[in-house]
Amino acid sequence: MNKIFFTPGPSALYFTAEQHIKNAIKNDILSISHRSKQYVSIHQETVESLKKLLNLPDGYHIGFTSSATEVWERISENLIDQNSYHFVNGSFSEKFHQAAQDLGKNAILDQVKPGSNHDLIAAVIPDNVELIGLAQNETSTGAMLPVADIEALKRNNPNKLLAVDSVSSLPITKYDFSMLDTLYFSVQKCFGLPSGLGVWIYNDKCLEKAQKLKEAGKYHNTYNSLLSIDKFAQKHQTSCTPNVLNIYLLGQVVKDMLNKGIDQIRQEAAYKSALIYNLFDTHEKLTPFVTEKKFRSVTIGVAEVTGGAEKLMSALSDKGMNVGSGYSQFKGKHIRIANFPTHSKEQMEMLVDSINGIDF
Amino acid sequence: MNKIFFTPGPSALYFTAEQHIKNAIKNDILSISHRSKQYVSIHQETVESLKKLLNLPDGYHIGFTSSATEVWERISENLIDQNSYHFVNGSFSEKFHQAAQDLGKNAILDQVKPGSNHDLIAAVIPDNVELIGLAQNETSTGAMLPVADIEALKRNNPNKLLAVDSVSSLPITKYDFSMLDTLYFSVQKCFGLPSGLGVWIYNDKCLEKAQKLKEAGKYHNTYNSLLSIDKFAQKHQTSCTPNVLNIYLLGQVVKDMLNKGIDQIRQEAAYKSALIYNLFDTHEKLTPFVTEKKFRSVTIGVAEVTGGAEKLMSALSDKGMNVGSGYSQFKGKHIRIANFPTHSKEQMEMLVDSINGIDF
Repeated sequence: MNKIFFTPGPSALYFTAEQHIKNAIKNDILSISHRSKQYVSIHQETVESLKKLLNLPDGYHIGFTSSATEVWERISENLIDQNSYHFVNGSFSEKFHQAAQDLGKNAILDQVKPGSNHDLIAAVIPDNVELIGLAQNETSTGAMLPVADIEALKRNNPNKLLAVDSVSSLPITKYDFSMLDTLYFSVQKCFGLPSGLGVWIYNDKCLEKAQKLKEAGKYHNTYNSLLSIDKFAQKHQTSCTPNVLNIYLLGQVVKDMLNKGIDQIRQEAAYKSALIYNLFDTHEKLTPFVTEKKFRSVTIGVAEVTGGAEKLMSALSDKGMNVGSGYSQFKGKHIRIANFPTHSKEQMEMLVDSINGIDF
Repeated sequence: MNKIFFTPGPSALYFTAEQHIKNAIKNDILSISHRSKQYVSIHQETVESLKKLLNLPDGYHIGFTSSATEVWERISENLIDQNSYHFVNGSFSEKFHQAAQDLGKNAILDQVKPGSNHDLIAAVIPDNVELIGLAQNETSTGAMLPVADIEALKRNNPNKLLAVDSVSSLPITKYDFSMLDTLYFSVQKCFGLPSGLGVWIYNDKCLEKAQKLKEAGKYHNTYNSLLSIDKFAQKHQTSCTPNVLNIYLLGQVVKDMLNKGIDQIRQEAAYKSALIYNLFDTHEKLTPFVTEKKFRSVTIGVAEVTGGAEKLMSALSDKGMNVGSGYSQFKGKHIRIANFPTHSKEQMEMLVDSINGIDF
């Protein structure tokens, strides 16, 4: 029996992914050169489909990296001269802060406790800050920032680059991309693909900043520096031999999502999310970790489990359903439930019913 | 009809790879967490099998990157303070030199023309050089350095780190690893896997050098810096969500190779290579690009095609066989034939017979 993975990433494959993998093998996609016309066409199709799904405006571009972790490094190297500002409320927003600091930047830390979130509207950022980093959806805790708050932050800081971690929330979160400058995500979350590919969205302002640092001799020039990624992206290629399979699969899954309709996908996500939080609110042994309702992630539900998570997770696993464990310090104390586009309403109902039926 | 890819990378899948991909799907390998016990066990098995296949001595370790291109960057950042020396005889050895230079190192260039190779035994390297880079198998031209010459170079320069590009020749080339310090390869060549994974072998001397640079404040600290890769490798993990599928597949294919026997695989490679160079030597329109026999690559045969390569490549493609085009400046002038473990003797015989039968 194949298990249903409600883990927050890697997660269940998108329900069409297996067939696309078989087609990739059948059509020799795994053997083609990344400099061939066939690859260029696959790359272009993937990027154009993604731009359509996300409604990216002109002046926004898409590059590929090996992971979102790599994007933290490249942003820090290529878009920050000296000062960055980091809203931190969990492990992943903290790791971006750490990456910038490790690379010698004056990375200002604005930290609130895990499970809570910042008041972005009231935030005062020093004038000399060049780039603001935040996690729209903090995968470790299930705390989400409302898009309206992010937009208010940008309006209050129009001249600073805004970098948004949407690793586990795209394409569910609906952005007006013109209100942010760069965003990144991983394909093993909401897109339901094998791990090993990060997607980096950046706008012309990012390119200008990188160019400015380059001219000032302050640019860290690597094969996957922003300007190198962009140079190849303009030719529908990558700077090194990429994960061709995943770029192909991403294009196919995005097309499936376009066919289904992004509004439909988002409506289903809202319905399934309501099921999850209703469970957390009503079950006597579960408490939603994120107390303030407006900060509760749609795509990752996190609950504290009275008496520990182990018994519940193990009983669910016996029924063929894997949920995520708590992250880092919360291992054994929390469960995390992914609510991704591949998880059907019926699967989520079954999960909730099962949890209600288990004695833990 | 699936084509046979004799292209030098990405190339044909190893003949068992398709079944392993199907098993990976069946066994949920694409959905497991890279922090789970199941992943740790897969990672450990892959590394241990590889160590066995390559006969790695104690004090040699294996890390994973997204590509061999990434390894050029990490070596330059973490193993060179100021001075490196690069034997360059084609595009890939040149790119390593370029990476070190781009990262601000005094990267000394020792260049011979493509298709030829250096006299490593006579080479005199300045005392202040910390690391020597060379391509044992230059994928762009099919020029190979004999292992005995590389060992002589090391004996003459015992205190310099020796970094070997074996991107397209492992596991065919048989090294005494104690005579080199770090080596890297890509899985989409001789291992016949989908692209998107690089393998980095390094010894304790590399770790000591990185540690020394760190203590001197000259270390570039990133998630995939050498010390970070090694810290996670010790726990059978990676520093970020890796290409889990490829790490699993690599382990499976290496086990298949161990079952077949590495000696048998190398003998077959020698036989197929003899077929290729016999074709080049006897066909009136083909001339081996590497004239000196001792420098002719076993795994990549490159020939100049009188009158241009296009007609031949197209006729072969019509017969279901793809060979590689010339690299960069040699596109349209050369063909490149990969002779990897997945290419059977029968396939190579068919390719040679077909070329002999085509009017081009």
